[in-house]
Amino acid sequence: MKKFVNDPKDFVPEMLRGIALANPATLRYVPEYNLIMRADAPSENKVSIVQGSGSGHEPAHVMIVGKGMLDAACPGDVFSAPPMDYVLETTKLLNSPKGVLHIINNYTGDRMAFDMGREMAEAEGIRIGTVIVDDDVAVKDSTWTVGRRGVAGNFFVIKAIGAAAEKGAELDDLVALGNRVNAVSRTMGMALTSCTPPAKGSPLFDLGDDEMEMGVGIHGEPGRRREKLASANEIVDELLEAVASDLPFKKGDDVALMVNGLGGTPISELYLVYGRAHAQLTARGINVRRNYVGEYCTSLDMAGCSLTLVRLDEELSSLLEAPAEIPNRIF
Amino acid sequence: MKKFVNDPKDFVPEMLRGIALANPATLRYVPEYNLIMRADAPSENKVSIVQGSGSGHEPAHVMIVGKGMLDAACPGDVFSAPPMDYVLETTKLLNSPKGVLHIINNYTGDRMAFDMGREMAEAEGIRIGTVIVDDDVAVKDSTWTVGRRGVAGNFFVIKAIGAAAEKGAELDDLVALGNRVNAVSRTMGMALTSCTPPAKGSPLFDLGDDEMEMGVGIHGEPGRRREKLASANEIVDELLEAVASDLPFKKGDDVALMVNGLGGTPISELYLVYGRAHAQLTARGINVRRNYVGEYCTSLDMAGCSLTLVRLDEELSSLLEAPAEIPNRIF
Repeated sequence: MKKFVNDPKDFVPEMLRGIALANPATLRYVPEYNLIMRADAPSENKVSIVQGSGSGHEPAHVMIVGKGMLDAACPGDVFSAPPMDYVLETTKLLNSPKGVLHIINNYTGDRMAFDMGREMAEAEGIRIGTVIVDDDVAVKDSTWTVGRRGVAGNFFVIKAIGAAAEKGAELDDLVALGNRVNAVSRTMGMALTSCTPPAKGSPLFDLGDDEMEMGVGIHGEPGRRREKLASANEIVDELLEAVASDLPFKKGDDVALMVNGLGGTPISELYLVYGRAHAQLTARGINVRRNYVGEYCTSLDMAGCSLTLVRLDEELSSLLEAPAEIPNRIF
Repeated sequence: MKKFVNDPKDFVPEMLRGIALANPATLRYVPEYNLIMRADAPSENKVSIVQGSGSGHEPAHVMIVGKGMLDAACPGDVFSAPPMDYVLETTKLLNSPKGVLHIINNYTGDRMAFDMGREMAEAEGIRIGTVIVDDDVAVKDSTWTVGRRGVAGNFFVIKAIGAAAEKGAELDDLVALGNRVNAVSRTMGMALTSCTPPAKGSPLFDLGDDEMEMGVGIHGEPGRRREKLASANEIVDELLEAVASDLPFKKGDDVALMVNGLGGTPISELYLVYGRAHAQLTARGINVRRNYVGEYCTSLDMAGCSLTLVRLDEELSSLLEAPAEIPNRIF
């Protein structure tokens, strides 16, 4: 296993400790619950925004905690939902008079943990709202999912909600906003290689030297089909067709375009992908108004990428443009 | 080859086109010379800061062009120095009454190209200063280098010079500053895997499943020795000992600590590495005042990392803290 790892069972806590040591003024690490939270949260004047999911998708979600984004992320182990009592304790720690908002990617394990955590927290008198993200157009149901999976579109839901929450928006309005952003976001990803979970120590699935998996899930779940390896342009065109035809995105639409690396693909390749995607959208009469190139929602060390399109309006553009303060800035 | 690539000979231009399409308001791409420059450069009131090097190290250097950083980057092909006439034409395009500063990583090919480019530009009356970066403690000479190699420490030299140049510093002062930052910067890297240049289509060197290369160069040049794969903590401790003992960094020193990913290692692992490095420095009485975790100077898709320490004083801290505007921000 070619990874930086000590005892695999310490992989997540050791990563979280590193994040906290790198951001002592702004973040707090609560080891008992795998919790990373803003040092200044909760606030009486602001809905607390919480995301939980398996680890292995970094920077989602433990590295996007900060002003204008998440107030807390409670991850599970690699590719595992957080335990329901972590969800409960996180919700209690983040309790605000304005309520707590749970943002959940649509995977069966995550939804169960958050449903139970919510029920227990509500029994203690905490007001909770829930937003489910399911932006992946690749497949209808999947290994770990009923319905569509939540993948990189998650970033846009969190960014918009985080910005609105900073301005004092109410819980119900944030739920409506999150659903609205999710409804205009579409993603599809593909894998050039498998990934290696630290505890397994070997690739999660087999993929031949001349093969790729179109529509792969962020836990290595099967996609639409396995294909012969193709050129970058062919891959981009296939992803884009799947994503753009789904909403569908139409001529004249203003969009945000995200090229998301899955962990093992260098940024040089992501910009090459971006160039093709931008040109193809322009040729379709779709206007790329904002762009995001880099790693947002990864699958450990998987080589591959996903493309996300988000249909923009004035309100959403302004929320995406609002400042936010998270780790991982280059400065 | 598990990469996003079309015709390998178009790899660099297609990447550059993608960068330009993603940053139309701030960057300009000049295809004839592989050049990425600030759209508002050159300025009459500012020394122009230029870096050239081989491609394959992104975000260095074509993705760190912007206010407070580089005015231009003129890359060569993957792992190849830019042609000397590209250096000349870049220098002419960036010519300012205050002069042009060349920042060069210490590799024989880069130095030759910039020496010749400088000579030709000076013959045309352009004032040029030069800063050589050679922060890699791993080996004295190397496959492509006489003396030490320039690696991730490069970022700090550029950041400090870029900030000082924005404030109107003169060419001679910027050269002195660059040399001063280079003199207090030390780096060592290691590879868990090889990397695959697009034009080669196969790994650049062989590394066994149970092996790692300590002190590897950013073009896959041999390091100090090949070792049996070790735990993350053992790797960090060995890198840190090599780096810290070199200046040497002493108890009471204030430092910036960079954990730089080499392209194929996910950010989760880099934070795990950061946690150990931070704790070990603290145990030595060395104060980590600033930290940088992510990809700064990569080797295509190589899995591995480097650690950089920079001894800080008040002036350098303030230059590192100054704002800068480059692509690849998460927002």
